[in-house]
Amino acid sequence: MFVTNAWYVGAWSHEVQGTALFSRKLLGEQIVFFRKTDGTVAALRDRCSHRFAPLSTGRHEGDCVRCMYHGLVFDAAGTCTEEPGRSRPSPGLDVQAYPVEERWKQLWVWMGDPALADPGLIPDCTYQDDPAWASIPAYIHYDADYRLILDNLMDFSHLSFVHENTLGGSRSIAATRPKVERIDDGVRMTRMYPVEHSFAPYLRGFETFSGPIDRWHVYELRIGGNVFTMDSVSAPAGTSTPDGYRDPRSMQFRATQIVTPETAHSSHFFWTYAHNFNIQDANFTRKLASRINEGFVEDKLMIEAQQKVIDGDGEDGMGYILADNGLALFRRMLDERLQSDAKTGVRAVAA
Amino acid sequence: MFVTNAWYVGAWSHEVQGTALFSRKLLGEQIVFFRKTDGTVAALRDRCSHRFAPLSTGRHEGDCVRCMYHGLVFDAAGTCTEEPGRSRPSPGLDVQAYPVEERWKQLWVWMGDPALADPGLIPDCTYQDDPAWASIPAYIHYDADYRLILDNLMDFSHLSFVHENTLGGSRSIAATRPKVERIDDGVRMTRMYPVEHSFAPYLRGFETFSGPIDRWHVYELRIGGNVFTMDSVSAPAGTSTPDGYRDPRSMQFRATQIVTPETAHSSHFFWTYAHNFNIQDANFTRKLASRINEGFVEDKLMIEAQQKVIDGDGEDGMGYILADNGLALFRRMLDERLQSDAKTGVRAVAA
Amino acid sequence: MFVTNAWYVGAWSHEVQGTALFSRKLLGEQIVFFRKTDGTVAALRDRCSHRFAPLSTGRHEGDCVRCMYHGLVFDAAGTCTEEPGRSRPSPGLDVQAYPVEERWKQLWVWMGDPALADPGLIPDCTYQDDPAWASIPAYIHYDADYRLILDNLMDFSHLSFVHENTLGGSRSIAATRPKVERIDDGVRMTRMYPVEHSFAPYLRGFETFSGPIDRWHVYELRIGGNVFTMDSVSAPAGTSTPDGYRDPRSMQFRATQIVTPETAHSSHFFWTYAHNFNIQDANFTRKLASRINEGFVEDKLMIEAQQKVIDGDGEDGMGYILADNGLALFRRMLDERLQSDAKTGVRAVAA
Repeated sequence: MFVTNAWYVGAWSHEVQGTALFSRKLLGEQIVFFRKTDGTVAALRDRCSHRFAPLSTGRHEGDCVRCMYHGLVFDAAGTCTEEPGRSRPSPGLDVQAYPVEERWKQLWVWMGDPALADPGLIPDCTYQDDPAWASIPAYIHYDADYRLILDNLMDFSHLSFVHENTLGGSRSIAATRPKVERIDDGVRMTRMYPVEHSFAPYLRGFETFSGPIDRWHVYELRIGGNVFTMDSVSAPAGTSTPDGYRDPRSMQFRATQIVTPETAHSSHFFWTYAHNFNIQDANFTRKLASRINEGFVEDKLMIEAQQKVIDGDGEDGMGYILADNGLALFRRMLDERLQSDAKTGVRAVAA
Repeated sequence: MFVTNAWYVGAWSHEVQGTALFSRKLLGEQIVFFRKTDGTVAALRDRCSHRFAPLSTGRHEGDCVRCMYHGLVFDAAGTCTEEPGRSRPSPGLDVQAYPVEERWKQLWVWMGDPALADPGLIPDCTYQDDPAWASIPAYIHYDADYRLILDNLMDFSHLSFVHENTLGGSRSIAATRPKVERIDDGVRMTRMYPVEHSFAPYLRGFETFSGPIDRWHVYELRIGGNVFTMDSVSAPAGTSTPDGYRDPRSMQFRATQIVTPETAHSSHFFWTYAHNFNIQDANFTRKLASRINEGFVEDKLMIEAQQKVIDGDGEDGMGYILADNGLALFRRMLDERLQSDAKTGVRAVAA
Repeated sequence: MFVTNAWYVGAWSHEVQGTALFSRKLLGEQIVFFRKTDGTVAALRDRCSHRFAPLSTGRHEGDCVRCMYHGLVFDAAGTCTEEPGRSRPSPGLDVQAYPVEERWKQLWVWMGDPALADPGLIPDCTYQDDPAWASIPAYIHYDADYRLILDNLMDFSHLSFVHENTLGGSRSIAATRPKVERIDDGVRMTRMYPVEHSFAPYLRGFETFSGPIDRWHVYELRIGGNVFTMDSVSAPAGTSTPDGYRDPRSMQFRATQIVTPETAHSSHFFWTYAHNFNIQDANFTRKLASRINEGFVEDKLMIEAQQKVIDGDGEDGMGYILADNGLALFRRMLDERLQSDAKTGVRAVAA
């Protein structure tokens, strides 16, 4: 079950270029993306209304896509505008069009009731697009339920173990009790690690200062779009705070991690890890992204292994540990949202 | 669901040679073919009656096949003729034998009630075997429901799109309204394209005349065996007709396309494309077959893509276009036949 | 359905060495094996109690295993001994531990009620471990129901066909009527082939005498652990008997074949083929094992082909032949045991 009345990332902008017909499954529905001649993007169900051939095996024609099985043409609104051999198309041939907006270098798709598709609801991921910050748009495919990926984000104690040699490093991360707050439509976590004596492994060789370090992760995860945004900082000890002054020597990062369900058992993971120092150094941006990716692949291996166990056994009987408070709160909020959607007749998508 | 009381093509004659034990699944039943010493062919269920080992992993012995698990021997009638360690076999060990006939370079198998297996019912595919015509026996495997392949044959408007650069070429094919006739056990389509100014792409370089062309496709598809036969001609404009005189400069073809279900979601496709000019030129026959094959692979890609969509979504909600009249008539006749078979207790095979 | 109150071979001793976390599925349950610092072996369910990550992707720490997702530690009894960030672990985090014993170079696991796990019930496979006999511990994975492998062992008439060029050779094996006896928890077969004139193919080049041969197979298969042990001998004709004197020129073998179900449709096959002559000649031991393995791969191919047919058709309608008497008796005893277990509430494992 998925929350449908929400904006989901369907693709990076750069994935849909020129006359490409780009197809991806979101929440169990196959969608074809293409650009009109004015550069704006259309998103249609990737299924011809006639005999169900994929439109993405068709042809880009101006502001339209032509199914190359029997030649029907559809515009960006999904309206069938041409049926070969007839002056006007037969009735009932339109295909579903999805509201789609381009924002933060991404294509955001509204998967629920189109009447509710307010672009003002698109989450703020401005650091992906801010000239004062540098990042590389990245993607990982997961053979796992999106909720297992969100669980992972809600419990950073795993950084001490899964990411011992990459993103984590210190056992103090697992030993730290985070502050957990319910926010509108999600959870905020504040994790402070004061006075560390070495940088996290992924930062070694890139240090911008020496001496003791105050490190923190402050992040939010929101239901609907499954958008995770994080303020991740390593600052000279005693100089800086999450909500106040930040010493300019600090290594500051803004991370975005967005999980779009593909099916009930597979997911798309879009991420950036923006930095506001060395932003002219493309080589640094690439090296940093490569090290972050190394860590995210560690997550993928662990979560896909976990998914395989759950495929056989289900989730009944999982135990709770102290570190689960954020995870448990988020899961409860998500379940409430899904149940409330079900009661009020919101279209549920099963995949 | 399949029509069972019918002759289906199980294999090309050349696929079952010498002491080969050739195994293929037809209508969900695995069948082993072999030749007896007199050259005639036997078709048995490919499953030893004892512990269900495949007979095709056994050994050809004269007019029989020996299961190489525990040594049982079966003759061409499926009778168990030897059980090691006993003078006569235990009772109840016979396996199912299928009526099989060799005709038109093919092995035709009767999949229903053997008492009804009249060889006179084998469809006429004489052009595959006529010395005045040349063709190459060909085969394509489909991961698709046989009915999607028949749909494709019943709507040639797809030639303008799927086969734009091979079998079709002209948009006029999609613009043409065919004559659709109900015939005994099937549908006849007559498609006339008068006064074309270029040959279809697959004929370019092979032209036998210049100037305007009258082109036509006249074809029949019959339920039971799913046998499609076609008269496909490109004649000097104004000289020739499907039912009358044919100018000797015409490029005349007789095509056979036969679809044998393998399972509910996969099919065997046997085809020839015979010509009655240049018949001594084996190189031409090969080049022609290669170009036709290129077109049929375009069909395969489109239909398998369509099948994948249907696997997820079912067929409910498909739209109808003007070009569907032949397809709709054939599907209705097929459904009536399947329902009538079901009512009268004809064995239905589910795969 | 499996018999659970039994000792099953989970692994060869050499598969669990050093700090390895060795994972294998037995009777549908994934189990992780590791050695404690004293060299003894622990067997835990390979699933962290917290979020179901596999423990085998974790880390060996002394007498314990640490889950490398969120850092929980479990000892050899399955007790959770550490939860990062807490002085004592949260309640309810223990994982299942299995009784495990090391015997005959193998790790034997009790899959049922731990209170009944009497090491005295471990079957006698002493020849695998006897300094007077030489053998190589070997393993084959089967994509087949364990019962099909047991069927194979219970009907040696297949040696004449499956193993015509390896383990069998003579058609007289299939022609021989074995003595079939019900023993405690299993079946004993006695198969005598007096006065053969050539050795079995797998012994050719290794002959220890010339002249006529008395050959026999005397073997037992026991329910619970599925342990098959065999006395296999080729002796100078007229000199030796299974129960009496054995001419020292005889080629004597003691074979063990043990089938542990992995799932309902896959199995582990552990085997040895011990000899008591040339035991200092490691090269002979290797060559012999290679030839036996060749024969066992023939079985695997046949049985997996049989399994595929059964996957489609089920087992209903299998015929019986004279050679099936041992097989039929064993299957009946196994069914009785499974039914009796079910009635008395023994935990059934479905996989």
